[in-house]
Amino acid sequence: MSLSLTVAVDANGADAGPAEVARGAVLAAESGVNVLIFGPAREMGSLPESVEVVDAPLSIAKSADPARAVRLHPDASIVQAWRAVADGHAQAVVTGGSTGAALAAGLFTVKRARGIHRPALAALVPMPDHPFLLLDAGANVIVRPEHLVQFAHMGAAFMRAALGVAHPRVALLSNGEEAERGREEIVAAHAALSGDAGLGLHFVGNIEGFAIGSGAADVIVTDGFTGNVALKVMEGTSAAIFRAVRSSAHASPRAALGGLLLKPALGDLRNTVDPEAQGGAVLLGLRAVGVMAHGSFSAPGFGRAVELAAQAIRNDLLGLTLSQLGAAHALRPPPPGAEAAVAPRAPEPSDATPSSAPAEAP
Amino acid sequence: MSLSLTVAVDANGADAGPAEVARGAVLAAESGVNVLIFGPAREMGSLPESVEVVDAPLSIAKSADPARAVRLHPDASIVQAWRAVADGHAQAVVTGGSTGAALAAGLFTVKRARGIHRPALAALVPMPDHPFLLLDAGANVIVRPEHLVQFAHMGAAFMRAALGVAHPRVALLSNGEEAERGREEIVAAHAALSGDAGLGLHFVGNIEGFAIGSGAADVIVTDGFTGNVALKVMEGTSAAIFRAVRSSAHASPRAALGGLLLKPALGDLRNTVDPEAQGGAVLLGLRAVGVMAHGSFSAPGFGRAVELAAQAIRNDLLGLTLSQLGAAHALRPPPPGAEAAVAPRAPEPSDATPSSAPAEAP
Repeated sequence: MSLSLTVAVDANGADAGPAEVARGAVLAAESGVNVLIFGPAREMGSLPESVEVVDAPLSIAKSADPARAVRLHPDASIVQAWRAVADGHAQAVVTGGSTGAALAAGLFTVKRARGIHRPALAALVPMPDHPFLLLDAGANVIVRPEHLVQFAHMGAAFMRAALGVAHPRVALLSNGEEAERGREEIVAAHAALSGDAGLGLHFVGNIEGFAIGSGAADVIVTDGFTGNVALKVMEGTSAAIFRAVRSSAHASPRAALGGLLLKPALGDLRNTVDPEAQGGAVLLGLRAVGVMAHGSFSAPGFGRAVELAAQAIRNDLLGLTLSQLGAAHALRPPPPGAEAAVAPRAPEPSDATPSSAPAEAP
Repeated sequence: MSLSLTVAVDANGADAGPAEVARGAVLAAESGVNVLIFGPAREMGSLPESVEVVDAPLSIAKSADPARAVRLHPDASIVQAWRAVADGHAQAVVTGGSTGAALAAGLFTVKRARGIHRPALAALVPMPDHPFLLLDAGANVIVRPEHLVQFAHMGAAFMRAALGVAHPRVALLSNGEEAERGREEIVAAHAALSGDAGLGLHFVGNIEGFAIGSGAADVIVTDGFTGNVALKVMEGTSAAIFRAVRSSAHASPRAALGGLLLKPALGDLRNTVDPEAQGGAVLLGLRAVGVMAHGSFSAPGFGRAVELAAQAIRNDLLGLTLSQLGAAHALRPPPPGAEAAVAPRAPEPSDATPSSAPAEAP
């Protein structure tokens, strides 16, 4: 088992092809991260010795039943990447491929972390000046209050470990700021997080959709249905407004000149706020972190994704998550008959190895 | 009972005060709509004889329990406005006050329309080039499939009657386009609307949040929790981007000049897309329509709200809604022991009078 920090990179699934992902991995390797690339070796050209390549040409595309696709194709690049983590050869996965396949493969190989109810997909939303983490962004359509409580801690631990936010403010997304507003499970989670289950968190209560992009919270917690809709509404709204800004520059000759002069600055802004182009997402709650680079990323984006994964490992994301949850008595009790493991556990390399705990489908 | 078209206007609750609402009502009256204004007479100054004023100084502000506030204050302007409809003196209500109070007062006086499970709040969203109706925007946090089916017909009937869209395209908001994606009630509503319950509708299936503002649908149907979050996320995103566009004009002297030249066109756009400033909402499913002008509207906005209500009445919104629902066998069966009333009913003035059916809290 390698004791140094290694990130397993799945080179399949990116729009620009495996060579672009590999170039990104090389950028990260040059800054000191060990990288193990899984993908079609002959499509990646010659790579420097700083990265190791495992030939894995098979790609699992977006599938209606990713769990089945993963079981049928143990040699697929995303499954091999997670398997490398399960076997101790790497500590995190980066992919630009299908999120469903990445989650299914993660559950199948490294498994859910002990004490975690459900893994969540957390989206990094790069609103201008006010980036935040939105979770769950789609892994769990239906949630219970204890899931939301865990998402709150998982998201806060990620913002601490990977992004260096010392005291992330955590909010629940609801249809009103009052504690009693929202679906039943939100009201219950609000009560829990306002009490012992919020221990160690900077819980700021409910926020409404207005607060998106206002900087009111660093971590916004919701179920995977609402989170998925909210994220895509942001993207749709942002795209509609940029289209309209472009066409408002045709309103008059004066506006046309203005549009021309403003274009470079607006182009930069467009790149900053487009979650599709810049955001990416993170799988939290497995025994190792998975960073979902967006398929449209170019090499520097994949390089940053590898760096983000490395930063999460360096600052012991999993250990931090579990000790936070333990202190708040928010870990999942072990199943009857299992060894007691309710107390917060010190992070160990074995956290990244598969256990006999059953994987839970998203 | 007046047989001509009359709109009851609640002058309380608007940011600019009752006089501004009254000025808007006068604008509508000048174009031929009878207007009956309920509000503080001494704050509205002298008004032309084209409008009738009923002195009703008491305003119900936003309340945690609007149903209780309505029962306690039968003399409040919004309750008197709806009461005028229930008594046959008017056929619709316009208000810039609290939506919760308007819904509670409507349920208390004119009641739910026969055959309707639940009234819904429908938001008019003025995306550039692609305005659409989003419902439910907040009246029902939890819904059943048959509620979503009715919302689809109610929304389509409104777009036909009030906005002249001949064949509105209706979609369900979900976390994927496939028929099996989404919460249980969405999957069931999708199946129903793809079958007999979609009769007479142009049902286009599920759309994702991306489609907001793309013109993919004229009516977007969802539960009141998701709808409320989605609407506010649109507003939050739109505000964040306009803030960022403004500050991108400080990126360089070149950008600053561009921003200055583009400013008037962008200002127009800002006004077009801001749902707070231009959208407003509609209460559907009561025995008469209620148009919720936004509190920030100025006189012309209130005038347009009155016109919108008048247009809905002229084109028999309620009759159209009920005959559509009847044809699709989607009316609510009468309670056991009640007279049979499942068949679509011709619209009658009695639709606007109170029945003994129990009001249902939102």
